[in-house]
Amino acid sequence: MAGTSKMRHIIHSIEFGNQLSAAYPWTSKPLLVAAPMRVISGPQLAVAVSRSGGLGFIGPGEKPQTTAVDLESAKDMLSHSPISQPASNSSSLDQSSSLLPIGVGFQLWNGDINVAASTVSRYRPAAAWLFAPRHGQAEVDNWAVRLREACPGTKIWLQVGTFNEAVEAAASDTASRPDVLVVQGTEAGGHGRASDGMGFITLLPEISDATRGSGIPLFAAGGIADGRGAAAALAIGAAGVVMGTRFLASQEARVNKDYQNEVIRAADGASTTVRTQLYNHLRGTFGWPEQFSPRTIINKSWVEQQAGAGFEDLKKSHDLAVKEGRGWGPEGRTATYAGAGVGLVRVVDGAGAIVEKTRSEAVEIIRRLQELGRD
Amino acid sequence: MAGTSKMRHIIHSIEFGNQLSAAYPWTSKPLLVAAPMRVISGPQLAVAVSRSGGLGFIGPGEKPQTTAVDLESAKDMLSHSPISQPASNSSSLDQSSSLLPIGVGFQLWNGDINVAASTVSRYRPAAAWLFAPRHGQAEVDNWAVRLREACPGTKIWLQVGTFNEAVEAAASDTASRPDVLVVQGTEAGGHGRASDGMGFITLLPEISDATRGSGIPLFAAGGIADGRGAAAALAIGAAGVVMGTRFLASQEARVNKDYQNEVIRAADGASTTVRTQLYNHLRGTFGWPEQFSPRTIINKSWVEQQAGAGFEDLKKSHDLAVKEGRGWGPEGRTATYAGAGVGLVRVVDGAGAIVEKTRSEAVEIIRRLQELGRD
Repeated sequence: MAGTSKMRHIIHSIEFGNQLSAAYPWTSKPLLVAAPMRVISGPQLAVAVSRSGGLGFIGPGEKPQTTAVDLESAKDMLSHSPISQPASNSSSLDQSSSLLPIGVGFQLWNGDINVAASTVSRYRPAAAWLFAPRHGQAEVDNWAVRLREACPGTKIWLQVGTFNEAVEAAASDTASRPDVLVVQGTEAGGHGRASDGMGFITLLPEISDATRGSGIPLFAAGGIADGRGAAAALAIGAAGVVMGTRFLASQEARVNKDYQNEVIRAADGASTTVRTQLYNHLRGTFGWPEQFSPRTIINKSWVEQQAGAGFEDLKKSHDLAVKEGRGWGPEGRTATYAGAGVGLVRVVDGAGAIVEKTRSEAVEIIRRLQELGRD
Repeated sequence: MAGTSKMRHIIHSIEFGNQLSAAYPWTSKPLLVAAPMRVISGPQLAVAVSRSGGLGFIGPGEKPQTTAVDLESAKDMLSHSPISQPASNSSSLDQSSSLLPIGVGFQLWNGDINVAASTVSRYRPAAAWLFAPRHGQAEVDNWAVRLREACPGTKIWLQVGTFNEAVEAAASDTASRPDVLVVQGTEAGGHGRASDGMGFITLLPEISDATRGSGIPLFAAGGIADGRGAAAALAIGAAGVVMGTRFLASQEARVNKDYQNEVIRAADGASTTVRTQLYNHLRGTFGWPEQFSPRTIINKSWVEQQAGAGFEDLKKSHDLAVKEGRGWGPEGRTATYAGAGVGLVRVVDGAGAIVEKTRSEAVEIIRRLQELGRD
């Protein structure tokens, strides 16, 4: 019976999540993750999230070499003030306790696999999050194998935004198969699927039904900004929950204050954010594989482009605005990447407080929903 | 503290839902609703859903006058075999027990307000679901006032797909303010917002935060096809749950068998469905307000249009295919409206069984999620 089958999914997702939690013994359930936002997710943010029982990721830096600098900082912070972990009582814990209790993200299409492998080998992060390959699963497989060789304890997380990506990843060889699939819905900020994305509300359960046999836990990303979204993600079958935009408004985010203020100000994320390559190009970033584009808060560059302005004019206005410190805000002109959940983000908090609040909200919401079963 | 505020939201949504349940005394919690799909949601479907403790809606018919014919059938079915309701012990129940325990949907832009009012006056449905106005809230207000005059016990449900629509509706006068807001995410099948929609995963909580003072319960629609989606909708703050596409695959749906087979067959809803006016035009339906478009399963008409085929050629091929009984299917050419959750719909069931299964799955999922709070 279909009902029983869905029960199994939920039970499996809880079990998959439990197995993963065992590999990350400092974490609390439900497992909350801070996404590896490029440059913005630095060592302070990642360590603060892990210190509160979540899993923090360091994002890709300006250059492949920057990741090692960030990991060195994180290692330094963690050696001065370690995260307490349960006493080791198994070889699995022995292995995990020798890992750095944070993750690191790699953007594949313009990454450097050799630099990445030597960085992972040296710093032993608990997770490596792969995303944005130019050449699909073959490229992902290559990275997964190399990083596993570099540090066998590092779990491989793979971000997908389509059903086919997920099914292909789940079917790849044991040596390259990811340990975690992050199912990113189209509401997500920053780079995701350009035109074939969808919310995780349909994407995740379809992927769950198709990949259950693989035993790979699914994490939900895209549009989650508080305990309500986190509880919904768990209900749909996620083993854990990823937030990005919410952490743009954290004290530890490596983000310009004007950018952060705009995240706080923006409301009605459905109409004030859009996916477009325009802002990459205005900032001089070209070469993104065409299957990806970033979601950004709309400002004058977008409005004027829609009204017919040419790129050269937009570029001049953009560069001048940035030079004069008017880059961000509703009258601004530069990239303000954020998800459609931006309207739910209204205050800057410490990253640790965000993790704890979101987790306790989710747990309390689930508790209160129990009342529905009692007529 | 924000966490406390979110707790209040969830508690409020449960309370709002409880108040609504009191007006629909035959329903079970969580309240599951079958959307008023045009023509497809006939009296058999609506009555079967209500008979299983949900709330079934009759959809708009081919003409405004068709609704009365469908309601007459439903009334007939219900008088031969009434839905048992708890013994009346309050004036509210007295009023509700004189209502027909189903709802009816009105498509405003091409509806007839006079026919609608006389139909509601005569059949006293428990709910009237308004959607697709050409002229925004003013048009909705007009309908709400007229239908309330026609039958004061009939609750006014309003479908919205944007933050602004919801805020405007919640701020309208007491006489016209809706009793329920259906927040339809962009994953939904059939007609919804053409280009400014978003998943309910961000839309509903933002609307909830902005309209809480109005006391209007929010129902989630779009992408929900089983107990996982239903549980997620409740977690995000919905007082109840709407499904459409799932009921396309019900025995009671007034739908061509080839259409229904295509709903069962289609998978990967993110890539096999699309929003477009093409199929309205191929079927000879023009005049939809530009802010709306329907989500449909892709077939040859769409593929060939994307490849550059002109409308006249597509129309000829469409009409021939329909005439020869090849309208539906992956090689078909006509409208196959369905939501992005279509990949979760894999079997035709009785509508009552769908309601019961979805409800019990949702309750069981919420129960199992409790384990997450216990580390």
